[in-house]
Amino acid sequence: MRYISPISLEEVLKKIDLYVTPLPQEILPVEECVGRIVAEDVRAVSDVPKENFARFDGYATFRPPRKGEKFIIVGENVEAGIKSSDKAVETRTGISLSDDVCAVLPLEFVEFRKGSLISRRSVPCGYGIVKKGAVLKKGEALLGKGDLIYPEYLNILSEAGIRKLKVYRKPRILVVPTGSEFVSGEKPEVTGKMITHIINDLGAEAFYHPPLPDDADKIGSVIKERMEKFNAVVIIGGSGFSKKDYSWSSRTKIRGKEVFRGVKMRPGRTTSLFTLGSKPVLIVPGFPLAAYTSTIIIGGALIEKLRGLTPRIGVIPVSRVRVAKSYRRIDMESHEIVFLKMKDEEAWPLNAENLREKLFLETLKFTILNPGGGNLRKGDEVTLYIRKSFSCPPL
Amino acid sequence: MRYISPISLEEVLKKIDLYVTPLPQEILPVEECVGRIVAEDVRAVSDVPKENFARFDGYATFRPPRKGEKFIIVGENVEAGIKSSDKAVETRTGISLSDDVCAVLPLEFVEFRKGSLISRRSVPCGYGIVKKGAVLKKGEALLGKGDLIYPEYLNILSEAGIRKLKVYRKPRILVVPTGSEFVSGEKPEVTGKMITHIINDLGAEAFYHPPLPDDADKIGSVIKERMEKFNAVVIIGGSGFSKKDYSWSSRTKIRGKEVFRGVKMRPGRTTSLFTLGSKPVLIVPGFPLAAYTSTIIIGGALIEKLRGLTPRIGVIPVSRVRVAKSYRRIDMESHEIVFLKMKDEEAWPLNAENLREKLFLETLKFTILNPGGGNLRKGDEVTLYIRKSFSCPPL
Repeated sequence: MRYISPISLEEVLKKIDLYVTPLPQEILPVEECVGRIVAEDVRAVSDVPKENFARFDGYATFRPPRKGEKFIIVGENVEAGIKSSDKAVETRTGISLSDDVCAVLPLEFVEFRKGSLISRRSVPCGYGIVKKGAVLKKGEALLGKGDLIYPEYLNILSEAGIRKLKVYRKPRILVVPTGSEFVSGEKPEVTGKMITHIINDLGAEAFYHPPLPDDADKIGSVIKERMEKFNAVVIIGGSGFSKKDYSWSSRTKIRGKEVFRGVKMRPGRTTSLFTLGSKPVLIVPGFPLAAYTSTIIIGGALIEKLRGLTPRIGVIPVSRVRVAKSYRRIDMESHEIVFLKMKDEEAWPLNAENLREKLFLETLKFTILNPGGGNLRKGDEVTLYIRKSFSCPPL
Repeated sequence: MRYISPISLEEVLKKIDLYVTPLPQEILPVEECVGRIVAEDVRAVSDVPKENFARFDGYATFRPPRKGEKFIIVGENVEAGIKSSDKAVETRTGISLSDDVCAVLPLEFVEFRKGSLISRRSVPCGYGIVKKGAVLKKGEALLGKGDLIYPEYLNILSEAGIRKLKVYRKPRILVVPTGSEFVSGEKPEVTGKMITHIINDLGAEAFYHPPLPDDADKIGSVIKERMEKFNAVVIIGGSGFSKKDYSWSSRTKIRGKEVFRGVKMRPGRTTSLFTLGSKPVLIVPGFPLAAYTSTIIIGGALIEKLRGLTPRIGVIPVSRVRVAKSYRRIDMESHEIVFLKMKDEEAWPLNAENLREKLFLETLKFTILNPGGGNLRKGDEVTLYIRKSFSCPPL
């Protein structure tokens, strides 16, 4: 067994930031940019809105309507711009209004009497109107470098006259499970399939490679050959420190450059990273729960860097909770990933006996304990983390 | 303008539950079931684990090791089952152990001395071993009807001998934007594209149809013709109550059956539902923010029902927050969707002037105010909701 010096999670993040480079940028139509990271600041090309518009279904008036006043209903929209202080023109939400419209009375504020309407409330000029440029002025900053494009941004980008965006490419990642027991068909390979789903959820595009045998030459040559078409590779299994862990040995066969070997983290301690040319090859443990945490936490940071973001711990802090049970840590030098089960507003740490619960929680909610701290004691406050995507759990 | 009687959100959920039927079930290989809803209870076919296994990289012993005791290191795994009380056999995490192994000493608990190891701690029998069936016994309940399959379930399902699952089909939903201004190219159509992304995020498969003109006959005939290949249709725009809102009029042309017309909800009040044969056609407003809330909240419930779940409000409550600013409501009879901006742990309601902020929050976080309540006053506690998928925002 080889002795290695695992590094801390903080060092892992620094190394990823140093050794992994963001993917090239590309210019795409706005609607194809959802889920991508913006590569340069974006400013509005035109005012938003371009013209005044009505905020409600209702009636436009040409002077401030007072409570009890009567208006004659004319036309169906005000684009014609009928100026008349005793008339009201039907509007629909979002309809363009000419400059002479004073206010829009919402449907709720009117009563009808023989083709006329009575205003049930007094409203000031400007009421119910969104003015040209009120949302955004031409030239105003709209998005900044590093922003993620959500689907709900599409409309305002379009209204601001933006048709294309410069974004980072989406990482293409090859997932390579290893293990002769999978090649022979003795056991079905599923950890790699799980990791493929999780990598997709993390904002990259994962491609599943059939399992490779426990053979460093074979693993190395496949990685080297397939690498060209991908931005990164994730090898699953054979990550450990024994002679039988061939994934790391494959690195020397293809002259990959060591970035780190082992992380002070449990589960996931044997996670390692090397580069081939400029491309990262991440090795995660074969044990499913360890593969899961390695991929989310370290793979997540790697993907963030490739996508044009600053790598951070690949999970999201959602709230502070108090643990309802004590938890004994094994390794005081490692970051410990503790899975929590939420029950009646209490957080119960799951120990290893609860492997089933760990894998079966509606969502895996966990906390990361930094090395050096004491055991987790009942009533201690901890930060609850969830993984970045797939679903937002009820907390 | 036609007078209608919008219904409450609670009634909407009841009507969806009554008029929309879950899709047929299908049997799929487990790894294709991620994101699907299980259609029947699932029990373990075999014990998990099938055999005792090692919890750590370390050394297996055949009697309880005491602090300071010396063991001779032999072999590389214990599958051979070497019974010897003075020997220790190298193990790797997850490796199978024979019944005669007493304990596994983790790497951290050992010191090495000339091919032997010294135990740095005393551990009892059973330490470091996950026993056959400890996680799950054959026949034990594993999943229940209505459970969502997460990627992290794949391994345990596989270990429990489950290769296929009966799940509900994934809804295929046609998204049909309407508006002659989009057909003519006067304005680019993007709301439909936004909705397509959101429907995908909600667990269905969305298909985008090019925009249709404001023409009830045309809209009706396209819906009727295309409906056959989809489980539901979402029409965008023309949902209002005026003569110029053709989407609802299209219903009579094709003899669709009214389920509801208008919802007591702002934004999104004109959202309506009809059925054609047994299939639902949802009409959401064209105004982007209203289309957004309608799709998430009502479309979300509709999709849940199609997927085999009980329809609920299509958002997730994440925490209770205090608002930092008062918010004046327009319509005291409607559910009001208030968008909140989180800043320094304060929740700021965004009013309609902040349309840009509404559309540009890193994530749209909102609360739903039930009708009948008072205005939202500074310091009031409200439940913060986020939408179901796409991303989990930091709170």
